[in-house]
Amino acid sequence: MAEKLVYVLNGPNLNRLGKREPSIYGSQSLDDIAALLTDRGRELGISVVMHQSNHEGALVDWLHEAEDSGAQAVLLNAGAYTHTSIALLDAIRSISVPVIEVHLSNPHTREEFRHTSWVGQAAKGTVAGFGAQSYVLALEAAARL
Amino acid sequence: MAEKLVYVLNGPNLNRLGKREPSIYGSQSLDDIAALLTDRGRELGISVVMHQSNHEGALVDWLHEAEDSGAQAVLLNAGAYTHTSIALLDAIRSISVPVIEVHLSNPHTREEFRHTSWVGQAAKGTVAGFGAQSYVLALEAAARL
Amino acid sequence: MAEKLVYVLNGPNLNRLGKREPSIYGSQSLDDIAALLTDRGRELGISVVMHQSNHEGALVDWLHEAEDSGAQAVLLNAGAYTHTSIALLDAIRSISVPVIEVHLSNPHTREEFRHTSWVGQAAKGTVAGFGAQSYVLALEAAARL
Amino acid sequence: MAEKLVYVLNGPNLNRLGKREPSIYGSQSLDDIAALLTDRGRELGISVVMHQSNHEGALVDWLHEAEDSGAQAVLLNAGAYTHTSIALLDAIRSISVPVIEVHLSNPHTREEFRHTSWVGQAAKGTVAGFGAQSYVLALEAAARL
Amino acid sequence: MAEKLVYVLNGPNLNRLGKREPSIYGSQSLDDIAALLTDRGRELGISVVMHQSNHEGALVDWLHEAEDSGAQAVLLNAGAYTHTSIALLDAIRSISVPVIEVHLSNPHTREEFRHTSWVGQAAKGTVAGFGAQSYVLALEAAARL
Amino acid sequence: MAEKLVYVLNGPNLNRLGKREPSIYGSQSLDDIAALLTDRGRELGISVVMHQSNHEGALVDWLHEAEDSGAQAVLLNAGAYTHTSIALLDAIRSISVPVIEVHLSNPHTREEFRHTSWVGQAAKGTVAGFGAQSYVLALEAAARL
Amino acid sequence: MAEKLVYVLNGPNLNRLGKREPSIYGSQSLDDIAALLTDRGRELGISVVMHQSNHEGALVDWLHEAEDSGAQAVLLNAGAYTHTSIALLDAIRSISVPVIEVHLSNPHTREEFRHTSWVGQAAKGTVAGFGAQSYVLALEAAARL
Amino acid sequence: MAEKLVYVLNGPNLNRLGKREPSIYGSQSLDDIAALLTDRGRELGISVVMHQSNHEGALVDWLHEAEDSGAQAVLLNAGAYTHTSIALLDAIRSISVPVIEVHLSNPHTREEFRHTSWVGQAAKGTVAGFGAQSYVLALEAAARL
Amino acid sequence: MAEKLVYVLNGPNLNRLGKREPSIYGSQSLDDIAALLTDRGRELGISVVMHQSNHEGALVDWLHEAEDSGAQAVLLNAGAYTHTSIALLDAIRSISVPVIEVHLSNPHTREEFRHTSWVGQAAKGTVAGFGAQSYVLALEAAARL
Amino acid sequence: MAEKLVYVLNGPNLNRLGKREPSIYGSQSLDDIAALLTDRGRELGISVVMHQSNHEGALVDWLHEAEDSGAQAVLLNAGAYTHTSIALLDAIRSISVPVIEVHLSNPHTREEFRHTSWVGQAAKGTVAGFGAQSYVLALEAAARL
Amino acid sequence: MAEKLVYVLNGPNLNRLGKREPSIYGSQSLDDIAALLTDRGRELGISVVMHQSNHEGALVDWLHEAEDSGAQAVLLNAGAYTHTSIALLDAIRSISVPVIEVHLSNPHTREEFRHTSWVGQAAKGTVAGFGAQSYVLALEAAARL
Amino acid sequence: MAEKLVYVLNGPNLNRLGKREPSIYGSQSLDDIAALLTDRGRELGISVVMHQSNHEGALVDWLHEAEDSGAQAVLLNAGAYTHTSIALLDAIRSISVPVIEVHLSNPHTREEFRHTSWVGQAAKGTVAGFGAQSYVLALEAAARL
Repeated sequence: MAEKLVYVLNGPNLNRLGKREPSIYGSQSLDDIAALLTDRGRELGISVVMHQSNHEGALVDWLHEAEDSGAQAVLLNAGAYTHTSIALLDAIRSISVPVIEVHLSNPHTREEFRHTSWVGQAAKGTVAGFGAQSYVLALEAAARL
Repeated sequence: MAEKLVYVLNGPNLNRLGKREPSIYGSQSLDDIAALLTDRGRELGISVVMHQSNHEGALVDWLHEAEDSGAQAVLLNAGAYTHTSIALLDAIRSISVPVIEVHLSNPHTREEFRHTSWVGQAAKGTVAGFGAQSYVLALEAAARL
Repeated sequence: MAEKLVYVLNGPNLNRLGKREPSIYGSQSLDDIAALLTDRGRELGISVVMHQSNHEGALVDWLHEAEDSGAQAVLLNAGAYTHTSIALLDAIRSISVPVIEVHLSNPHTREEFRHTSWVGQAAKGTVAGFGAQSYVLALEAAARL
Repeated sequence: MAEKLVYVLNGPNLNRLGKREPSIYGSQSLDDIAALLTDRGRELGISVVMHQSNHEGALVDWLHEAEDSGAQAVLLNAGAYTHTSIALLDAIRSISVPVIEVHLSNPHTREEFRHTSWVGQAAKGTVAGFGAQSYVLALEAAARL
Repeated sequence: MAEKLVYVLNGPNLNRLGKREPSIYGSQSLDDIAALLTDRGRELGISVVMHQSNHEGALVDWLHEAEDSGAQAVLLNAGAYTHTSIALLDAIRSISVPVIEVHLSNPHTREEFRHTSWVGQAAKGTVAGFGAQSYVLALEAAARL
Repeated sequence: MAEKLVYVLNGPNLNRLGKREPSIYGSQSLDDIAALLTDRGRELGISVVMHQSNHEGALVDWLHEAEDSGAQAVLLNAGAYTHTSIALLDAIRSISVPVIEVHLSNPHTREEFRHTSWVGQAAKGTVAGFGAQSYVLALEAAARL
Repeated sequence: MAEKLVYVLNGPNLNRLGKREPSIYGSQSLDDIAALLTDRGRELGISVVMHQSNHEGALVDWLHEAEDSGAQAVLLNAGAYTHTSIALLDAIRSISVPVIEVHLSNPHTREEFRHTSWVGQAAKGTVAGFGAQSYVLALEAAARL
Repeated sequence: MAEKLVYVLNGPNLNRLGKREPSIYGSQSLDDIAALLTDRGRELGISVVMHQSNHEGALVDWLHEAEDSGAQAVLLNAGAYTHTSIALLDAIRSISVPVIEVHLSNPHTREEFRHTSWVGQAAKGTVAGFGAQSYVLALEAAARL
Repeated sequence: MAEKLVYVLNGPNLNRLGKREPSIYGSQSLDDIAALLTDRGRELGISVVMHQSNHEGALVDWLHEAEDSGAQAVLLNAGAYTHTSIALLDAIRSISVPVIEVHLSNPHTREEFRHTSWVGQAAKGTVAGFGAQSYVLALEAAARL
Repeated sequence: MAEKLVYVLNGPNLNRLGKREPSIYGSQSLDDIAALLTDRGRELGISVVMHQSNHEGALVDWLHEAEDSGAQAVLLNAGAYTHTSIALLDAIRSISVPVIEVHLSNPHTREEFRHTSWVGQAAKGTVAGFGAQSYVLALEAAARL
Repeated sequence: MAEKLVYVLNGPNLNRLGKREPSIYGSQSLDDIAALLTDRGRELGISVVMHQSNHEGALVDWLHEAEDSGAQAVLLNAGAYTHTSIALLDAIRSISVPVIEVHLSNPHTREEFRHTSWVGQAAKGTVAGFGAQSYVLALEAAARL
Repeated sequence: MAEKLVYVLNGPNLNRLGKREPSIYGSQSLDDIAALLTDRGRELGISVVMHQSNHEGALVDWLHEAEDSGAQAVLLNAGAYTHTSIALLDAIRSISVPVIEVHLSNPHTREEFRHTSWVGQAAKGTVAGFGAQSYVLALEAAARL
């Protein structure tokens, strides 16, 4: 039986995970999270494709690609672009695949400029604040859509 | 072995669930959600205590009670008080039990006044946008804290 | 023949009517207004149920009750909660009974923070500025809906 | 016995009533409303003078004229000028005749720029949201001043 | 074969064209523009009716008249009223004829208060920044609607 | 020897002077002020042309006319349009005659919305707060330009 | 000789005093403060009635009750409602008993949303920042009114 | 005779044209528009170079390249970057080629965050709201510069 | 017969007059203005006392001194302190001598931060924009108070 | 035994106390308050040093001097500088002596610009609204620090 | 002895230096500045690596690379991204190398949107306004860290 | 050969350097910095005149004096007045000597109210964030002007 396909897209500075401000972001690297998701995806019958880029345009490209590849959902941790990118908002609206906003920390407990989310204005839902488990929970949410 | 205890607190108008604006909030009643949580809690070894009130003060009271009852986590869907209640923010800070913010719909896709969250400024994390599954996912998140 | 039923709900400090700042609110008490409405209701074939509370949550409760009691309209003078309560806005949206916003004085002639109305964003209409007659005119408006 | 005199002044685009966005403004023309008011005025012993103009200055002129003609009240639906005209605010203050703000729809349920009212800052009271009946109720309010 | 009819409406101070701040508005008078449009209209099978007024109300009147005269489009350079007139916004909405916003200069390169446009909120489209050619291009746009 | 020519333009509600809020505007009528100016003008060799209108567009028209008539200065008390009319700002910029802003009262001691002045952004100077003498002083200022 | 009567009203989360964020609020419980006030009141000939509630409406009720009980002053620590409750502002205005705003910490040294005070807009005075002594000093202030 | 050269640059998500929200953007693809422009360019003696990228930096690069290639004009539909990119504003200022802002829909009729334009602050002019014809009209405008 | 006494107070940087940005402030020094005022004062029976300081506190001191010296009016050009000094506003209110705000240039034609005036909120009137003649006209205004 | 030393610093216009707006500030002069404080200080074993200046810099100087003189507390009524002086905020932070903010009236009941306090952001506490007793209560607070 | 390594990163449009608005940015190209820095670096024992990109993501990449390459400091002239890029702020925080903000011109003397700096919120320091010497001074600052 | 002359002006609280918040401002006193600058000045052929005052007016006075003394540059660390003093902005504009803004810490990493700079709007350049070396670098920058 064909598996479900889920894209997991990560924005700027998430390649520094584990090195960057561990008191906020935890000590797991993005590779650790990829491994967690692959394992959990296998249990759920979901094939996970994971990307990271510091380029806003690359995230837009991959959102389009997700639709063209037949993905059933996208998990998107857009990092700082969450708060500045109308291009991402438009990209989410330009595809029909549901997008789930993911954050390691809870942005509302941080600086005020992290309380706004362009991504959120078009996202199906949000999971934030549970560290690497935010991704896992979002994958489980995707499995139930 | 002693079970975990989780409080599930619901704010104003959530008693109308199922009747109120089903295009936004879905057709399940709060009782349906309680049943879902009790079932899932049983699997996770979690005992669920669920309350609803239209009174801001009652939500503050129950947050205090959660700590005094030894709850390990609180799921809080504060409804409209999410956006207006500094008293709830202070209540969350006045207890040491982690609080998870829950919403049926994704507030960022709705009116701008629903984009701010006083609750979120002290919450451990957020799960929003997955209908009744937002509660279930939040319970699973609580189980992993 | 069955009468129409109209709920008349009054918010914080309206129990002080007649004593409180008479230059703004006039010298009639809430009981005087209840009497006026009962009399006028009798002429219009309307049965009037009147409540007052200083609790935001109680007003939400009564809005739900109005629908469950089969009321055909609600007159709502939410007092200060007019300007702060998203919970009331949501409550009005959670019922199908039309709600008419009522004020004794004209809020636009007072402090700027009284120029905004959460209640108004979901109300069928508004009658303000005519003292106790605001209620009577609103009842007549309800009779013609 | 001398009748009461009431001016009814209508601002920009109200000459399009019945043709303009009927889902918001209803299907009655301004002439229909004039007829309603004349009839109801006759019952109340009120002579009604009704004007419409797309010119802000004409509304100011008629407010002055209302006082000079001995009118006991003015019903004013200033349309879009409600939200932009300090000149109308000053005009209402420059006369001693009480002015009642009237709207067919409830401005608070529409775009945010319709939530402010310069007219309201000097008006005796407001009736809004009841279609043509807003005028009739305002006339009855005028009769009781 | 019946020609198309297009109204060209000009707001405050445009009667000073050619004399007024030529570095911004160019040296052509409104009559020069009328001649250009008449010529170009003849080629396109469009009959052009052109008006100018310093009165906001007159512009509202002519927008109504455009519809009643069977015009297929309106070109509207509302001058300063572009930025202040909700009455014009409502007037455009009160007719079904498409309205094209026209400006000689590009308002976004000028003072910040010229960056907002009430007219634009209901206009079919905009042509700005090409001097007298803004009108000609807008007429060609109208021809293709 | 040819006299100087000075236009004195008065905006909305100034025709009510003497009747309107005398505690703010004094008890002199506009005719009284015209007489004062004519007398003082005679001493200064200045011929005074005075107009009043409640129409924004009429004030724009007269500003253009002032230039075409060879006036050496304009005294402009735009009343409420001072605070709302970009059209007047543009009109002042569209002529080369210097314009002096005049007010009976001092707008900065009144409501905050009277602290901004579109007229002032293009005016040569301002005289405000001296009642009818504001006009006389402004005429003397014009004589010295 | 009849004693003076002073009401001491405490808002949301103050029942957690001693447990809640002791670095901000100190280690004394509300009972400790009640004891301090009773003792000091005895010296000053003042009988103290102390209440706490997490319900905004209860605070409004007690303010009314204070007047009806003949209290000569109210000490009000409204907690988070200080910053959100127009209902409390109106309640203070609806009674003639002077109200003294009290805070344990100095709100101006904390988050910006604690710098505004609705209570303060109608309070006789304020004592803040001295921990439990804020109450004692306020009681002494009340004794000297 | 050497042809004119015009660059046509397209920003994020415009590669989805035809698939993306057709009620807003129409059903033509970017290739369809390229074909329209090539054809119209041939008539006008204009050679058209067309690019699209989801990367802000690529648009900046192409603006520089346009000048270095000797282009006489640039048509720029910067999509979402219109509203967020000061880098594009600076890029337009860093070249001497005139840039014409183009939009398929009229941004002023959409969300408020689309009413601001960084691009517009340096653009020669704007054509918006005519679907694919916005590009064609802008090309004609370029031909007349 | 006893002369009138008028204080003329000048704020920061006015000691640089004649040297400082002559295109804005003209080429006359403060001594030149003092001479003009002394001469004109002699004609009007007014003795002029003139001070300048770059210290906000010195201006406050002199305002108090003006009252204590029996001055009948103060001309105050507070320079930059016009826009920042609540202390000056309070000083004007703390004396009963009328204060006339004076400016060489018209602040409304300059940067936006010069459009606000704390001084103006308590001043009797304003004369601005006429260079050194602003002082002379203000002195004449003082003579007529 | 060595006495405690307390500095009492007074800002602009407080030298006018007793003369200045007695309805707001009471009829006692600053000397009267000094006498009250000296008397009360004697009872509390506190030596009081009192200064007043209209110069912001002098207040900064005295705050430094307070620390260098070994003062145990400063009472600071900064008058208008409360609302504008970041220099005072920094001065309070540059010393270790606790500073108590004092006001005769309650600033929150006055103009909105008096609701903000730079002083308060670094002050130990605040006493406001009790006239001269504000100082006495603050001295008592200082005695208990 | 091992040299120090310093990265010099340049943002959008800085590749146009020398051609772009020379009145603001001077006539030196980026290559000229590279030569200056190499020379001065040689004197200071610093090896300089210089990059430029119009892509926000490339700047983020290079900031990470700077840390991985063992650079002791980064000079960052982020151009327009200074004012819009939270991604750059996060990138600076994600590395431990100190970053010095550099600008050719002084942004505070230019448009208001250039007065804010996301880069500055995490930068060690800033050197701005000295043309190419801003880079040289920043290199000297880096040498002294 | 005549030396260059440079003024170094220091604003409020900088006399507390070394004592005041050393984690922000370092442990060097202003005398230490003066010694550094004198030494470095000797190497550069620059004579340094250094002043400090807590009075805004004194800083304005010294800026004027710098020009009158023939200084070639001014280093200005205006402390808190950086953020509040339009008088300093005007003073810098009133002289032709270039002024360099200096800060010990980087204001953009501190409270938001320290992100704005009136001084910066007229300064030649800025050096901030390098402790005492900020002054030395600024002196070197002055040497190269």
